[in-house]
Amino acid sequence: MQKKSLSLGKVYGLLEPGPVILLTTASRGRANVMTQSWHTMIDFEPPLVGLVVSDRNYSYAALKSTKECVINIPTADIAKEVVGCGNLSGQKVDKFKRFHLTREDASMVQAPLIQECFASFECRVVDTKLAAKYGFFVVEVVKAWMDPSVKNPETLHHRGKGVFMVAGKSIRLPSKML
Amino acid sequence: MQKKSLSLGKVYGLLEPGPVILLTTASRGRANVMTQSWHTMIDFEPPLVGLVVSDRNYSYAALKSTKECVINIPTADIAKEVVGCGNLSGQKVDKFKRFHLTREDASMVQAPLIQECFASFECRVVDTKLAAKYGFFVVEVVKAWMDPSVKNPETLHHRGKGVFMVAGKSIRLPSKML
Repeated sequence: MQKKSLSLGKVYGLLEPGPVILLTTASRGRANVMTQSWHTMIDFEPPLVGLVVSDRNYSYAALKSTKECVINIPTADIAKEVVGCGNLSGQKVDKFKRFHLTREDASMVQAPLIQECFASFECRVVDTKLAAKYGFFVVEVVKAWMDPSVKNPETLHHRGKGVFMVAGKSIRLPSKML
Repeated sequence: MQKKSLSLGKVYGLLEPGPVILLTTASRGRANVMTQSWHTMIDFEPPLVGLVVSDRNYSYAALKSTKECVINIPTADIAKEVVGCGNLSGQKVDKFKRFHLTREDASMVQAPLIQECFASFECRVVDTKLAAKYGFFVVEVVKAWMDPSVKNPETLHHRGKGVFMVAGKSIRLPSKML
């Protein structure tokens, strides 16, 4: 994917539909990737996102200590890799290596972008008040990237237990909503 | 829709894909409905859900004071009504009447179910620590309903400004994920 800089005001339009994401972190020189569906937009611009990362996830410690991550959005062509990353813990395995995912340097955080994803958002943690109780982190997107040639991304939407809805057609209705 | 009782353990599979929801509240005998896409699962069972309802929304006061709501999931056949409810404030209009949406009594909360939606989850607010700052409420689903005849619901997923992705095909991959 040939990603280019994306205006921060366009981030919500990619996360609001509820795609599965690949969340990357990096701690002490070691990067990890986690498959994740529990996220929500919280504000438009600067874009604030709520992420649920349980303390049972290996990524929890890295997210809490470095306060940085990257939200990457995959499409159906790498569905096997997405499921693979959700079924293994980064504690035991280098998932980038195992699933042939390519790290790219981010510009503002240590965690890497994933080359195979069409959109990547570099994030900093801004609120951890509900982290201990629910694993809920509020992050701010500080830099966004997207491959502008991708128009109707075939994102994955998890129905549970390995069943995914693949993004279908788009419809447009007259609306004043953002 | 002929909704029947749904096991609470199945709620996440309907919200995790990220559909647009119609959130109902009721305060002082008056019900309201709000179109909403900013939500996330927080825990499986009992199901905890995070909802962003800004204090600019008319529903904010009702949610804060009654601590009750119903999450209803619409499908593409009522897309016009969904957009209509997102473009008007309940302060001025009875949206049920305006958009011919049918109220059904909930069993455990005052807010109504919407008959035209295939799934409805009765909720109680359990955490408001981030409500003042971000409009973020943690709610617990206390009773769930679904029309069991609906297998692959054509849910709506908002890309912004009235453009919706309609749920496409389902794929299944071997997975240990919940």
